Amino acid sequence: MPAETYMSPERYARIRHFLSLRQPSLTLCLEQLDKPHNVSAIVRSCDAVGVYEVHAVWDNKPEIRKSTAMGSENWVYTKEHSCIENAVSHLKAQNMQVLVTNLSDNAVDFREIDYTQPTAIILGQEKYGATDEAVALASQDIIIPMVGMVQSLNVSVAAALILYEAQRQRQLAGMYNTQQLTEQACQKMLFEGGFP
Amino acid sequence: MPAETYMSPERYARIRHFLSLRQPSLTLCLEQLDKPHNVSAIVRSCDAVGVYEVHAVWDNKPEIRKSTAMGSENWVYTKEHSCIENAVSHLKAQNMQVLVTNLSDNAVDFREIDYTQPTAIILGQEKYGATDEAVALASQDIIIPMVGMVQSLNVSVAAALILYEAQRQRQLAGMYNTQQLTEQACQKMLFEGGFP
Ligand SMILES: C[S@@+](CC[C@H](N)C(=O)[O-])C[C@H]1O[C@@H](n2cnc3c(N)ncnc32)[C@H](O)[C@@H]1O
Ligand SMILES: C[S@@+](CC[C@H](N)C(=O)[O-])C[C@H]1O[C@@H](n2cnc3c(N)ncnc32)[C@H](O)[C@@H]1O
Repeated sequence: MPAETYMSPERYARIRHFLSLRQPSLTLCLEQLDKPHNVSAIVRSCDAVGVYEVHAVWDNKPEIRKSTAMGSENWVYTKEHSCIENAVSHLKAQNMQVLVTNLSDNAVDFREIDYTQPTAIILGQEKYGATDEAVALASQDIIIPMVGMVQSLNVSVAAALILYEAQRQRQLAGMYNTQQLTEQACQKMLFEGGFP
Repeated sequence: MPAETYMSPERYARIRHFLSLRQPSLTLCLEQLDKPHNVSAIVRSCDAVGVYEVHAVWDNKPEIRKSTAMGSENWVYTKEHSCIENAVSHLKAQNMQVLVTNLSDNAVDFREIDYTQPTAIILGQEKYGATDEAVALASQDIIIPMVGMVQSLNVSVAAALILYEAQRQRQLAGMYNTQQLTEQACQKMLFEGGFP
């Protein structure tokens, strides 16, 4: 039986609508993040801009905080990888440009990137940042400019700023006007996400 | 004795430089926020874009989390007000446009605002959002567009997105090229912030 049989027409229409706005060619890769409220806030921001699936590598998986994630964990898939190398290979196999947030001298301003291309952004651990391995695997370091005394932003803040720059560019390019997800991927989420 | 006598020339130069970038005509007003990590992340983002002073109204003052704020609480003043009405009067007396983040039908997209004008943005409590009183006192509701299933963003994420849109506009307008703070305000922060 098709998924719509089990839910109200209103709920079905609402889910179909948000699925029609999902951007499978935009994603994040979380490297060893370990604070639950950061991961939860990031998944929530992903939902808000239309990320379909988030990638993660972690030795200690943080629990999602329901009060911060607000249910977004039901609407954004998380795909775990055993190491950053496997994660990046997976992303490159999807023809994504893989960028890494890194406070280095080679980093370019995050607003200079073309996010209408298939793009994955690596975010680093709260205390230590992205690993050398992640930096070596990525094709470009990116940075959010700062003019204060403190050296870095909170990681969930950094993630949202980059995602919303991508949203701005993709909106201008009309990428929210036509459905990007395959019908198969829509059916999967309708079935799994529709009944949390 | 002037403040520079007490610190290394490098530290003095670094503090003078960031003070020359401070934007006293851009601020936030936090209404009843009660989660320490949110307030800490917000103060850190304020430091990063050059906010000089943040305003707050709270019945239960959250402790700053040093691991999240990363010292930014020493470089951004927090001014407390006894109620939202007093806070808004104070801001209007400085000729600021007072905007409120509110998920209403009247809200305009946050990117449509001119943040080169003196601007204060009210952010609402994590669970309940801005109060009716705050909405009535402000001149405009603003909203960050979302295309997912979840209704709102984390408040520290919302704050950063608006601050960085303001930073983008002010940078384009050359507002980081000339010092905006008075010499008196610089001396005050050099003296108080220089020795945390
Ligand atoms: C708190 S930072 C790590 C700081 C660490 N000391 C370093 O040098 O990378 C944690 C993560 O937040 C993100 N981040 C923080 N500030 C950033 C900025 N200004 N630009 C880009 N990413 C940033 C990055 O993903 C970073 O790995
Ligand atoms: C989690 S929200 C409060 C949600 C509450 N149910 C409401 O309807 O306002 C907490 C604060 O985050 C900010 N915020 C969250 N999402 C926002 C958005 N899309 N646009 C503007 N501000 C937002 C606002 O300052 C809001 O008061």
